[in-house]
Amino acid sequence: MLSPIRKGSLVDTAIESLRQNIENGEWPVGTRLPVEAELSEALGISRNTIREAVRVLAHVGMLETRQGDGTYVRASRDAGETLRRITRTRLAEQIEVRIMLETEAARLAAARRTDADLTAMTSALDARAAAGTNLSERIHHDERFHHALVRASHNAALIELYDYFANAVSQTIEQTETSADLPEPSQEDHELLLAAVRRRDAEKAETLSRALLSPSLNALQQGETTP
Amino acid sequence: MLSPIRKGSLVDTAIESLRQNIENGEWPVGTRLPVEAELSEALGISRNTIREAVRVLAHVGMLETRQGDGTYVRASRDAGETLRRITRTRLAEQIEVRIMLETEAARLAAARRTDADLTAMTSALDARAAAGTNLSERIHHDERFHHALVRASHNAALIELYDYFANAVSQTIEQTETSADLPEPSQEDHELLLAAVRRRDAEKAETLSRALLSPSLNALQQGETTP
Repeated sequence: MLSPIRKGSLVDTAIESLRQNIENGEWPVGTRLPVEAELSEALGISRNTIREAVRVLAHVGMLETRQGDGTYVRASRDAGETLRRITRTRLAEQIEVRIMLETEAARLAAARRTDADLTAMTSALDARAAAGTNLSERIHHDERFHHALVRASHNAALIELYDYFANAVSQTIEQTETSADLPEPSQEDHELLLAAVRRRDAEKAETLSRALLSPSLNALQQGETTP
Repeated sequence: MLSPIRKGSLVDTAIESLRQNIENGEWPVGTRLPVEAELSEALGISRNTIREAVRVLAHVGMLETRQGDGTYVRASRDAGETLRRITRTRLAEQIEVRIMLETEAARLAAARRTDADLTAMTSALDARAAAGTNLSERIHHDERFHHALVRASHNAALIELYDYFANAVSQTIEQTETSADLPEPSQEDHELLLAAVRRRDAEKAETLSRALLSPSLNALQQGETTP
């Protein structure tokens, strides 16, 4: 769906060239880039195209253009590229990460959840039950529940990272939930997790959260050889 | 350093407009965007500028341009914007997330580490010890150790997410390590963690990893009110 490099786009070629120079350490963080004319000459790409590529990499935090000064390397990672790389990892790896994020969230939520958090989680879970055999509805409310749980962690960095990750892998996850023979966590599993968060039992919440997707993970890992 | 919107840039204004329409659900995932001419008219921005904005949002995975068809909403999150939001979270929140990532990595590494992983971790740790009172050297090798530990998890999604996150918060972390009175984990704490990974003791590795930064986290959380 999302191709790593859209063919024929000179801007993408320019982005790739600049990024490689940064990722391979040729231009460490803090480096001032050669001026546009030089880059254009060196890469054989027009100045307009270079300017567009710089703008894209500035948007993802790799470069920073300082008015009247120049363009500096700000970070060695390209957030857009990271997203694509995460999308391409194996489903078992994605579920392992998802378990980690949700389990940490459950632990923190048990300590910090407000009444409003409980209301949000409960309403999502009730809607999940009401969805019955309507799979897309059930998945929708299931996601609402997990997002509400993560918000209840009251850790803004964790919430951002979870949203980012969930967004990256949502297609893979949905494909699995709708097509594969993976065991689906039950309504009861979810209710018990909510109850632990409500009772502020962090240890129980952590254990239940980890247990929620473990059967799916195990099913996926069977047949795979561990590295 | 990295300003949310560089002033005066029409492209940034266009990006912001498009992103808001996506984030607030006006254009859900799967929507085909109005054609350039219409967008240009609606936003009062030139078609060239719209085209540049679309390219940026395509790079971060929010939009997808299909040759000869149109531009579609591909995701509801902007990876570049997420990075900026993570950078702006509180240090205690960032450390909580870092502990989560490294602890999960330690657990997985204990099960999956190869001899090459052990060599990489050991070499980083020896260099960390050799750095002595040279703080920037020590931090550099400390980071090398943690990155080697995360790579030893052999989970490509976790490795990407850690690199992404470490990159987002590295400036904050460095500021803290060099300036604040936060307790620094000792060489011994690191050696014991490495030993647990070598002995394939996942439970011990998990406990030691969580303990490594807990004193820093506690120090930061004192004086802060929990939500």
